[in-house]
Amino acid sequence: MTDRFLIAGAGLGGSLAAALLARAGHQVHVYERRADPRRGPVDAGRSINLAISARGLFALGRIGCADQVLGMGVPLYGRLIHSPTGSLTYQAYGTGKQCINSVPRAALNQLLVESAEAAGARIEFGRRSHDVDLIEGTLTTVDNRTGEDSRTVAGAIIGADGAYSSVRAAMQRREWFDYSQDYLEHGYKELEIPPGPNGTHRLEPNALHIWPRGGYMMMAMANQNGSFTVTLYMRIGGERGFASLATPADVLRFFERDFPDAIPLIPELTDDFFTHPTGSLLTIRSHPWHVDGKAVLLGDAAHAIVPFYGQGANAAFEDGVALLEAIDAHPGQLGRAFERYEAIRKPNTDAIADLAIANFHEMRDHVASPFFLAKKRLQKLLHALVPRWFIPLYPMISFSTIPYAEAKARAERQERVLKAIGIGFAVVLCAVGALLLL
Amino acid sequence: MTDRFLIAGAGLGGSLAAALLARAGHQVHVYERRADPRRGPVDAGRSINLAISARGLFALGRIGCADQVLGMGVPLYGRLIHSPTGSLTYQAYGTGKQCINSVPRAALNQLLVESAEAAGARIEFGRRSHDVDLIEGTLTTVDNRTGEDSRTVAGAIIGADGAYSSVRAAMQRREWFDYSQDYLEHGYKELEIPPGPNGTHRLEPNALHIWPRGGYMMMAMANQNGSFTVTLYMRIGGERGFASLATPADVLRFFERDFPDAIPLIPELTDDFFTHPTGSLLTIRSHPWHVDGKAVLLGDAAHAIVPFYGQGANAAFEDGVALLEAIDAHPGQLGRAFERYEAIRKPNTDAIADLAIANFHEMRDHVASPFFLAKKRLQKLLHALVPRWFIPLYPMISFSTIPYAEAKARAERQERVLKAIGIGFAVVLCAVGALLLL
Repeated sequence: MTDRFLIAGAGLGGSLAAALLARAGHQVHVYERRADPRRGPVDAGRSINLAISARGLFALGRIGCADQVLGMGVPLYGRLIHSPTGSLTYQAYGTGKQCINSVPRAALNQLLVESAEAAGARIEFGRRSHDVDLIEGTLTTVDNRTGEDSRTVAGAIIGADGAYSSVRAAMQRREWFDYSQDYLEHGYKELEIPPGPNGTHRLEPNALHIWPRGGYMMMAMANQNGSFTVTLYMRIGGERGFASLATPADVLRFFERDFPDAIPLIPELTDDFFTHPTGSLLTIRSHPWHVDGKAVLLGDAAHAIVPFYGQGANAAFEDGVALLEAIDAHPGQLGRAFERYEAIRKPNTDAIADLAIANFHEMRDHVASPFFLAKKRLQKLLHALVPRWFIPLYPMISFSTIPYAEAKARAERQERVLKAIGIGFAVVLCAVGALLLL
Repeated sequence: MTDRFLIAGAGLGGSLAAALLARAGHQVHVYERRADPRRGPVDAGRSINLAISARGLFALGRIGCADQVLGMGVPLYGRLIHSPTGSLTYQAYGTGKQCINSVPRAALNQLLVESAEAAGARIEFGRRSHDVDLIEGTLTTVDNRTGEDSRTVAGAIIGADGAYSSVRAAMQRREWFDYSQDYLEHGYKELEIPPGPNGTHRLEPNALHIWPRGGYMMMAMANQNGSFTVTLYMRIGGERGFASLATPADVLRFFERDFPDAIPLIPELTDDFFTHPTGSLLTIRSHPWHVDGKAVLLGDAAHAIVPFYGQGANAAFEDGVALLEAIDAHPGQLGRAFERYEAIRKPNTDAIADLAIANFHEMRDHVASPFFLAKKRLQKLLHALVPRWFIPLYPMISFSTIPYAEAKARAERQERVLKAIGIGFAVVLCAVGALLLL
């Protein structure tokens, strides 16, 4: 049974879903507001590097693209933590070859668009959504240049149009639609470490660099051309916020105190700081994700998350696979398929939304503390001793396809075990101490 | 220092704010989407009766309207609980003359509109917001009949345009605006008990009637003409939901089992049930409520709450007074005034939002339990013994102007005291029991 889908958005989630659905024999028509990424430059200074990990690779494998994506990325095997004095501490993410992959968003998007077209999907660029009619199941789009509009009747509309989704906005105007958008107090600014001589990397390429500083932090991820994309996260307002850095001298003073080792690496520091926009970071939750069998949301449109677990794109890719599986499981019954898809995915995307915020606190605060490092070591030891019974949270999220909600619940149970071990250890220590005193 | 305000919405909150600001000498211009309430009928079947209590009366007193409002209402001194067998239990709300007032929304709105106009505000009806420009501080409205539009420049725009506010929608399109809308699973349906012979009331008029039934409930509030407005609250879907009652026979069977004493009182039961819309109940939270000194939100536009504490209109009225006071305290500095207003009000409206949802659970579930009744009696006893130190929550909310957040925190402290007393009492009982056994 083939259906006819109209996808709003040819970003990462939309183009992967297009490729999946087209390969399964469905008719797929995609509209994208932006110009064809194959024909021109993409916005600069507004795309945190992507970290593609197991979940993303699993979905990419379904359209035969996993190896190509690995080929365009740089593997990161752990975190390299920069202290204020410039000393470094390394924390491996997992064991052996387990890694996340720093992949450039633009190249990945192009690959997915090509894969979707090759599978038979029709993609029109430069057309923005003008009106979404959820009763009739029609999408009216307007050509960005000519202003000419056209209305398309869908079997169903898939809203893969990002955090500021038009499809979701149409759903939000209906009654009984729960919705929240929560901004972090922190924003981000992209900076760049250019390649060294002969395209070499000026820092270790195979690690995620973190400069944790409590209320704020900086990160850097390598690109294949020898450059690093650097992201500074800090509060928008307040004493240690972007607003407090008003002049190039302010920025330099701030970097001299907090990130001295980064200054020589970022030659355009003050220029980029004042010309690049300050990005915002928000969590979006919505429910329901679908309207009868007429429309359904996917990726950021349904559940935008903050980037601190590197799971936004991975989660959107998992959505695409789950959506296809639900459609396959309920042929000719899109309403039931969408219901099933949301029932499976929403608990998981709610979980990763929470974990992504929690990981922000971990990265900017705890990552540098000796207690945190000791706990990480204990977790690794337990995992080595009883590998099937104890898996730390990070590998479950990044190196497995255990559903996010299950991983989160399991980590909470393991956390209680760790606490019990800690208490037991303290009791033994006290007992030994008492015996020695007697 | 006089300012020029443009108010979107001449509902309860907007027209009271208009009256307050105009009386203080400010220029006030109000636009309202609906027709002039003095010239025609209002939507039927969609307005839960209003319960005006101390906070509302305090604000109404500021525009000299408190007595008039009391004159159009019916005082309710407590709850009268209807069991499934038709037996009645009475719970007084407070002591002596303490009461809430059942007031018809339409009449109250007319009075406020007249009061605003008498104070010098200019109100235009039948014009809907078309565009809100928060940078320029302009509001473009369209005449509902002619379609002709006009753009007005404001000193500042006050968004008093309800839960589906256009002013808030414009704010929401900006970055860093936190927002949530959460629907209850329950909806409501209005029914009517008509007047008895010679305009008499067919139930006790001076009590709020409740039929608590666990997952759902019914309420009735008297009007001066002898009628009662009845509201049935139940889930939208599911086994005991509106959707499960598909035929007049279903409705009758349901009422025969759950509300048998109400059947003879509601002659149009099945007609009204199927012709009146099913209303939704939602909580809206937003932040910030203001943009520079250009726009500010008030009432449901900022913080729609569910109706179960009878505080929606009272809270909107308190907003108006707080806004005026903040403007007076910062002459010529609307930005700072709006900031101050939000800082004072938001913790309080967040608190009443939580309390309103909690009261729904209390009313539909606990109100009929012997344990709940015993606790209420203990609270009253404590209040009688130490009236300044122990005040139950309901009187703090309905019969005082203690800020909502303070009332909520104090009730939580008192709840802990009650628990301690309960435990102490149990310990004494056990001790006595043990002594008797010895």
